[in-house]
Amino acid sequence: MSVAFIHAPVQSELAEVEAALQAVTHSDIPQIRKMLEHVLSTAGKRLRPTIALLAGRFGEHRPEALVALAASIELLHTATLVHDDVIDESDTRRGRPTTNSKQHNAAAVMLGDYMFAHAADLICKTERIEVVKLFSKTLMAMASGELTQDMSAYEYGQDTMQYFHRIAGKTASLFATSAEGGAVVADSPESWVTALRDYGENVGMAFQIVDDILDFKGDAKEMGKPTGSDLMEGTITLPALLLMERNPDDNPVKRFFGDGDSKSEHLAEAIYLIQNSDILDESQRVADDFIKRAISALSVLPESADRTALADIAEHVLVRRS
Amino acid sequence: MSVAFIHAPVQSELAEVEAALQAVTHSDIPQIRKMLEHVLSTAGKRLRPTIALLAGRFGEHRPEALVALAASIELLHTATLVHDDVIDESDTRRGRPTTNSKQHNAAAVMLGDYMFAHAADLICKTERIEVVKLFSKTLMAMASGELTQDMSAYEYGQDTMQYFHRIAGKTASLFATSAEGGAVVADSPESWVTALRDYGENVGMAFQIVDDILDFKGDAKEMGKPTGSDLMEGTITLPALLLMERNPDDNPVKRFFGDGDSKSEHLAEAIYLIQNSDILDESQRVADDFIKRAISALSVLPESADRTALADIAEHVLVRRS
Repeated sequence: MSVAFIHAPVQSELAEVEAALQAVTHSDIPQIRKMLEHVLSTAGKRLRPTIALLAGRFGEHRPEALVALAASIELLHTATLVHDDVIDESDTRRGRPTTNSKQHNAAAVMLGDYMFAHAADLICKTERIEVVKLFSKTLMAMASGELTQDMSAYEYGQDTMQYFHRIAGKTASLFATSAEGGAVVADSPESWVTALRDYGENVGMAFQIVDDILDFKGDAKEMGKPTGSDLMEGTITLPALLLMERNPDDNPVKRFFGDGDSKSEHLAEAIYLIQNSDILDESQRVADDFIKRAISALSVLPESADRTALADIAEHVLVRRS
Repeated sequence: MSVAFIHAPVQSELAEVEAALQAVTHSDIPQIRKMLEHVLSTAGKRLRPTIALLAGRFGEHRPEALVALAASIELLHTATLVHDDVIDESDTRRGRPTTNSKQHNAAAVMLGDYMFAHAADLICKTERIEVVKLFSKTLMAMASGELTQDMSAYEYGQDTMQYFHRIAGKTASLFATSAEGGAVVADSPESWVTALRDYGENVGMAFQIVDDILDFKGDAKEMGKPTGSDLMEGTITLPALLLMERNPDDNPVKRFFGDGDSKSEHLAEAIYLIQNSDILDESQRVADDFIKRAISALSVLPESADRTALADIAEHVLVRRS
């Protein structure tokens, strides 16, 4: 399933979202414009805006407010990537040099803040304080998830529940807000709002798990980062957790985190064991389960092309390669 | 005029602001709690919240919404200080170690984002989308001001207008929003809202100019940073601008920015010339003018103890020592 196929039902509104994002780059200050163009031109798949636009069709359709919501969400997402790059000190993202390496840390912090500000400005254009509240709660959940991830780095003894909790904040919350926000803008009935939030949250969980799988099996070039980079940075994701669960007494993750010497040897062993076992398949099954829940949540919504499109996005998340 | 005197008219509401700020530190995650307590316990003078609380008395008094506004503004202000510390790579702020040095850059970025998120959450508690809009516009102006400052660092040939424009965004916008936000919450008549915004903006301009003066004449220990630290970091403030204006062809600021060698010599000379001339007095007169405009803006408001209190704050800004 191609991304173009997924975008098709909301193509004209997505074009307006792109225009709204482009408008953000129109700064008086040439350097700011250049940095923003660099960051925003690295177009992702716009999954979150697409979900928001589709969710906003279950009720009274308000395209203008939906476009503002969708653009705000994508901008918020991109702002967190800019800050993540400072945090991770990574120098590539989606295969391109990051703001962090091209400019410096300070500019990345300020640019991220500038984008947050514009995201806040855009969300106000929905003219709904409930939607702004969702936005700020999501920002809280994301920041909290990132902080927790950072503070549990290189910490042995994390379990799957902690992992789920962390990715719920870091990733799933914004997907949940995309879907719920759309529904709220549309004045959807309560049960639909809840269903769409559930859908978004489960899609987000699966999205992050697939991301974490791709980090172990993805093509380094396609992903724009080295294989096993999460583990290298001390972030324990589902595959590493499963490896540890299976070998609680002695395993290369534990040795990698604990050992001062020959660290890279343990890391290589961990990557090898994860790649050459059924761990990635099992991780994929966990992602599948979340997608099943996402699709099942949609069942309370009336059957429509838009509902099918949301289900298609959920399926796409499972099979994406980058 | 002591700070206690300034706080007196809104003392009980300020206590609620403190409680709201304290509530932000109540995170499930002990490390987050510790970092937030560290950052928020470094109590500033709470000038912005005090202005917001007072401005909110010109119209229908809504203490609950005002407390949310005031706490949000102080939190936003503190969040920008946390991010500034990453940007400036400074290791002390108000004489105490910053988050940046105590933890690391990444944590400071995330902590600032976490605080922004809570500030956004608090501002929504005013239940006024107009106030949330003010908040996001201010965030835009502040981020833009910071970016401009960073990008014009070590750039010779800036003029006073550029400086005023920069500090209007970086500092005055939040003071303006404090006053205007209070007035909007109170449903003040249009002319009062404008007057209070003018007041806030002018107080903010003076506040920053006095800050920039103190950077040259202040006691390094009291200020918690070395004398001339702005110039050292490449930030040209009013006193340095005046020094350059008086000696356009050759001056130590120009030499400090241009010269590879013996930089510290030029810096020391610039500080000496600024300290031993009437430049700081002239800078102070510029600050005085802004305060005069602030106080004159208040004249459309009905005479009251609250109006006098706002005028007192303006006077205090001029005489503060740290």
